[in-house]
Amino acid sequence: MDSLKIFAPATVANLSCGFDVMGCCLDTVGDEMIISKVAEPGIKITKIEGADLPMETHKNVAGVAVEALLQKLGKDVGIHIEIYKKIKAGSGIGSSAASSAGAVWAVNKLLGSPFSPTELISFAMEGEKLASGNAHADNVAPALLGGFTLVRSYSPLDVLKLNTPQDLFMTVIHPQIEVKTSDSRSVIKHTVPLTKAIHQWGNVGGLVTGLFTENYELIGRSLEDVIIEPLRSILIPEFQTVKEAALSNGALGAGISGSGPSIFSLCKGIDTAQKVASEIEKIYTKTGLDFDIHVSKINDQGIRILN
Amino acid sequence: MDSLKIFAPATVANLSCGFDVMGCCLDTVGDEMIISKVAEPGIKITKIEGADLPMETHKNVAGVAVEALLQKLGKDVGIHIEIYKKIKAGSGIGSSAASSAGAVWAVNKLLGSPFSPTELISFAMEGEKLASGNAHADNVAPALLGGFTLVRSYSPLDVLKLNTPQDLFMTVIHPQIEVKTSDSRSVIKHTVPLTKAIHQWGNVGGLVTGLFTENYELIGRSLEDVIIEPLRSILIPEFQTVKEAALSNGALGAGISGSGPSIFSLCKGIDTAQKVASEIEKIYTKTGLDFDIHVSKINDQGIRILN
Repeated sequence: MDSLKIFAPATVANLSCGFDVMGCCLDTVGDEMIISKVAEPGIKITKIEGADLPMETHKNVAGVAVEALLQKLGKDVGIHIEIYKKIKAGSGIGSSAASSAGAVWAVNKLLGSPFSPTELISFAMEGEKLASGNAHADNVAPALLGGFTLVRSYSPLDVLKLNTPQDLFMTVIHPQIEVKTSDSRSVIKHTVPLTKAIHQWGNVGGLVTGLFTENYELIGRSLEDVIIEPLRSILIPEFQTVKEAALSNGALGAGISGSGPSIFSLCKGIDTAQKVASEIEKIYTKTGLDFDIHVSKINDQGIRILN
Repeated sequence: MDSLKIFAPATVANLSCGFDVMGCCLDTVGDEMIISKVAEPGIKITKIEGADLPMETHKNVAGVAVEALLQKLGKDVGIHIEIYKKIKAGSGIGSSAASSAGAVWAVNKLLGSPFSPTELISFAMEGEKLASGNAHADNVAPALLGGFTLVRSYSPLDVLKLNTPQDLFMTVIHPQIEVKTSDSRSVIKHTVPLTKAIHQWGNVGGLVTGLFTENYELIGRSLEDVIIEPLRSILIPEFQTVKEAALSNGALGAGISGSGPSIFSLCKGIDTAQKVASEIEKIYTKTGLDFDIHVSKINDQGIRILN
């Protein structure tokens, strides 16, 4: 039996101006998975710890993602999947994406890497489709490619890996409240003023420029979302207070992670990221709500093998 | 008397997905100007050849741009401006921008360069405001900085110079028809579907990535405008035929230059740019309309001194 134990990282999608197209990969928070190739054909979820998730292959995001990969390959191999869930479901830091991306990454490795990391994205997106009804790529792409990613187009799928400046850290607070997907969708308007759209794509261009030129101040100035954040942030307790505290304590920028409720702060240097974490902690402690805080370097590698 | 003779280049604004924020600088088409520092205070337009433009300083784009510069500097110096206009007015390749950018660039040089090229943008924008009622920067920025530029934000003004891959050439056809500014504005809708806006900012991110990574195919794939071009192109005769001919003859992408009626085709290599030019020429010859065709390397320097 061939077997791989892997780390499947959490990810921050959207990144303010980059709504629906940008994302980045974290390093200190993620699931562990053990993926094994076995003699008997078929995909089985053999163990799930840390979350109450379906064991049936076709109802499990990792299961359907691996099914999509094997179907494309036209091979009827046997795969066992163990999931040690550490990313909380509904946190907005790519919990389902970690499982589906991790599973296809490991299966691909066990089969001699017939697909490139970029090619694996479409399989992992099947897991996202099961999880949310929408085959989005903005969490699975950074999990599979590492660093910062851009979904230039969905049809045809065109995903780009951007540059990762070495000194970037994320502070993420996950308020443990439930925001219904239907609520976070219903606050979004289907049309936007052209002037705001132009403002937003100016910032997307600025953010991408900042990443390639490693201009931290430019990255910070570009982390502005004039379209989604003003609408969605009302669902996140103390969003403005947290954002202002992050910025006034040196964060380059802050915004909603994915569709929330997590809030990310992008920082230059770990000292700033930790200072921001401690200030945000003070704010959230007062609310009485449960919360987690993660401080992480941007993970330029993505999924990795654990010993 | 100190005097400078300069080349003030034409520019292509918008660049498909980069509507209102991106632009690039041409090298083979542009105005010539002679700017002189004289003893008697005041700004005078002393000569205009090649176009019927106002000689009164406060009605001339170069005049008002220089006025803005001198006002900021708080200096009452004497400036004479001669304009040898080669870029046709209303062509959509930055005719007014060349005059205002060229004038402030040369005056700044004559005064010992108190301002950086980026700082000169806001003065040149005063010329654009006079010309069109709108102080836009997407033509004056590439004229002053050279290469490809991005206006990340207008308030505060934040203009970035991007990277210029060495082998990029533009073919521009200028159909000599008059498109009224009011018409080219009135076809644009003030709200856009969110899905199209997301598509557009994915392409802006892709285009900026393509420029920095010098990935010509990516630059081509990203030159797509799902918002403005479908509406505005109806004002330009044979737009679709020209675009299709450009693409089928190897252009990376094609679109409306500025607000038209010029059509740009971005090409890898001068051979492709010239082939595209000759195919477009055949199409336009059949229409009976007058037209100019320009083939130019992307000018990474911007305005330059002539001997």
